[in-house]
Amino acid sequence: MTEGDPEVDLHDLAERLQAIALASGMTVATAESCTGGLVAHALTEIAGSSGYFLGGVVAYADATKQHALGVPAELIARHGAVSAQVARAMAAGARRVIGSDLAVSVTGIAGPGGGTAAKPVGLTYIAVEGPAGSEVRRFVWPHDRSANKRASAAAAIELLISVASPGPA
Amino acid sequence: MTEGDPEVDLHDLAERLQAIALASGMTVATAESCTGGLVAHALTEIAGSSGYFLGGVVAYADATKQHALGVPAELIARHGAVSAQVARAMAAGARRVIGSDLAVSVTGIAGPGGGTAAKPVGLTYIAVEGPAGSEVRRFVWPHDRSANKRASAAAAIELLISVASPGPA
Repeated sequence: MTEGDPEVDLHDLAERLQAIALASGMTVATAESCTGGLVAHALTEIAGSSGYFLGGVVAYADATKQHALGVPAELIARHGAVSAQVARAMAAGARRVIGSDLAVSVTGIAGPGGGTAAKPVGLTYIAVEGPAGSEVRRFVWPHDRSANKRASAAAAIELLISVASPGPA
Repeated sequence: MTEGDPEVDLHDLAERLQAIALASGMTVATAESCTGGLVAHALTEIAGSSGYFLGGVVAYADATKQHALGVPAELIARHGAVSAQVARAMAAGARRVIGSDLAVSVTGIAGPGGGTAAKPVGLTYIAVEGPAGSEVRRFVWPHDRSANKRASAAAAIELLISVASPGPA
């Protein structure tokens, strides 16, 4: 399976993240726009996920990004809701509001509508915020709405696994 | 399909809710514990859902119910997180935080762990809060974890449809 494969097994990824998080005692939160709750749904399919997953915010409307995650309106106005800057602010907001060690955010254009020349359907930013700072990734998925959501959810859990895994600093 | 059937088609239910909400101009938010984001995921599978769905909170941990939805700690301590009282407070909190016309909440014990004699696996409370007040329903699903989540998500969308549908008062 390659990154971005819509048939990637979210269940397997969620099990891998859970094993790492429970072993290290790290807690996780989510901030989802275009995935609409799919990341949280995938994590909570695994029995025992309440041992590390505290919850998340589905910030679908821009106003919800502001009110529930504290994303500044001027950041959205300047960079757009689908941007690396807003992805970072969403992850930081979820980490602060929910009080987790790590938080992952997803903001993108799942389609079929909403794309522009500069920001096409499939464009997605994923950020993780943790004690050591933040990381952000940019993807452009080529799939339909539902498969773009699954590809984004898989990439979000993969980034959490990458950040949470013990390894050389 | 009967209520509680784990094979109920969430896609069809989400399409029905979206048609009703867009026709009436009503906005919707979610507050999910045991469904873990599945209700929001199902609603956002439908293109155009951003026209009425503002977002939601996945309040998996009790602390997230308090911090992100404003559910009083003493309400959880007195009645338990899986109770009609907490379901109502979660829906009211999501409606207030997200600023929607309607909000639905789900709190239950998806299993396989977490059940007691008084509160068995499958026990689930679903509440809708709207301009005319709130409604709450109690279910005990007989399925496994994943199917209990799907049954709860279907019942949540069905309750939203029931409350949002025009009809005799």
